[in-house]
Amino acid sequence: MKTVLSSATKTVLIGPDEPFVIIGERINPTNRKKLAEELKRFDFSRVRADALAQVEAGAQVLDVNTGIPGADEPGMLKGAVQAMMEVTDAPISIDSSTPEALEAALPIYRGKALVNSVTGEDESLERLLPLIKKYGAAVIGIANDDTGISNDPEVRLAVARKIVQRAADHGIPREDVLIDPLCMPIGANHNFGRITFETMRLIRQELGVNMSIGAGNVGFGLPDRPPLTSSFMLLAMPVGLTAAITNALEPEIYRSILAGDLMMGRDPFGKRWNQNFRKVSAAKAAALGAAAPAAPSAASPTPSPVTGR
Amino acid sequence: MKTVLSSATKTVLIGPDEPFVIIGERINPTNRKKLAEELKRFDFSRVRADALAQVEAGAQVLDVNTGIPGADEPGMLKGAVQAMMEVTDAPISIDSSTPEALEAALPIYRGKALVNSVTGEDESLERLLPLIKKYGAAVIGIANDDTGISNDPEVRLAVARKIVQRAADHGIPREDVLIDPLCMPIGANHNFGRITFETMRLIRQELGVNMSIGAGNVGFGLPDRPPLTSSFMLLAMPVGLTAAITNALEPEIYRSILAGDLMMGRDPFGKRWNQNFRKVSAAKAAALGAAAPAAPSAASPTPSPVTGR
Repeated sequence: MKTVLSSATKTVLIGPDEPFVIIGERINPTNRKKLAEELKRFDFSRVRADALAQVEAGAQVLDVNTGIPGADEPGMLKGAVQAMMEVTDAPISIDSSTPEALEAALPIYRGKALVNSVTGEDESLERLLPLIKKYGAAVIGIANDDTGISNDPEVRLAVARKIVQRAADHGIPREDVLIDPLCMPIGANHNFGRITFETMRLIRQELGVNMSIGAGNVGFGLPDRPPLTSSFMLLAMPVGLTAAITNALEPEIYRSILAGDLMMGRDPFGKRWNQNFRKVSAAKAAALGAAAPAAPSAASPTPSPVTGR
Repeated sequence: MKTVLSSATKTVLIGPDEPFVIIGERINPTNRKKLAEELKRFDFSRVRADALAQVEAGAQVLDVNTGIPGADEPGMLKGAVQAMMEVTDAPISIDSSTPEALEAALPIYRGKALVNSVTGEDESLERLLPLIKKYGAAVIGIANDDTGISNDPEVRLAVARKIVQRAADHGIPREDVLIDPLCMPIGANHNFGRITFETMRLIRQELGVNMSIGAGNVGFGLPDRPPLTSSFMLLAMPVGLTAAITNALEPEIYRSILAGDLMMGRDPFGKRWNQNFRKVSAAKAAALGAAAPAAPSAASPTPSPVTGR
């Protein structure tokens, strides 16, 4: 099954035989005071810069969220989407559960957007699915409902099933629904990973839909989070993870995803792996060259060479 | 299913609900000229140092290979095993397919050893399985036979089935057989990863045995191999990989395995994850402290702090 997203000039496919899709999470005012202030002034310069940086770092799709309490979410969302379309051709994931904001942003979007997100709650489904259908978007459906987030994979499967069925009732085909099986912080309960992986296995087996996840949450409260996010995504790929909303700007996360693609046969001849290696090596060499004049004679430790082992 | 290995004083369990087991690959004269020369002189000082270093780095089991063409493999193997038992309590993987070498090393080993390895070839099975039974060892069975290494997962499964059955014929129970599903360099054929993963899925489904793999081979010929080895192992864990013969001394590989264990619910409270983080951080701080006097005033780039993201 393939999910198709597009901008005016570019198509991105999501599916088990396609390269894993990174949905860049950066354009979000949560914990970003400067971005929040600028958005409120309808200053989208940082949105443009963040869009470009994430695409350069490997994000194929860009998430945008303008949910700031008390501020004009619809206006800011429309402006941000417009700004992003001006600088990149990456399809956009419109991150809002507010009908008014979606009504403002979806009509101006050129292409097939992703809406992030509905849940299994009746109110969410009934308010948002008609808009998603009206504008021909795809949607992320999160596997929780008004009873909360279950620790029982069968219950999460049932919520996913409900979302897929309600979407179908509204004329949205299954391939346009990405299920988010939910990833809770492993530091809170060491079974949270297994619960997510089993949920994914069940969803893939019964529903066959593509899946995306907000991966950064899994290491919450633990030290050295990038490798936790990376390993979580790699462990989830064999059970059906096809995309993730994550930090494309973290080189270790991007590299892990490239390695996963290579191992899963989704990077023939290691073309993207080798390209990224050359790019990273060149950047390191440039950084060393720039740093050298500052301390030409110092016996400063050089980065370890990448070994051939 | 649990595979039990032991030394005189320590037991290591291998199985899907146990921490992933690293079998340290370092004590092997291939491409290690100094080690080879020392082994030929029956000098085991480097063997002892390598054993200690690998255990310190996280290896739970230690492989030992003394296969040097034209030299006394049985005598060297016996001496190396003796030396390793003197300095560590890690169970040993005796890496030889030579009956004479196994006959020299197995009688002096105190505990339950792992023999690395038999293949599905009749000659290999009939010569080695009686020794493995005689000394109560466990064994790695590699999924190739005299027809070679098949690219068909069903054929590899059939070889694995044959090994498990022949072992049973010799009175060796299934839990004492670790199958190596074989991992060929992904740079040679981008389907080699998928072939291995599908082989593993079939083996786990039909035979239910534990699996180990020589993981370092997968990135042969490609740049930046540690993350390739790491991602390969993480992708293989959900389909049944329970152990790997790999480079415990590579911090990135060890860290990925710890992250995998944490995500799979095999490191409650992140105890080992946190311990390793503190150990690595302390080592980095010590290295910085040691480096500082050499260039006290230079504006040398400091390592990036580990982020909390």
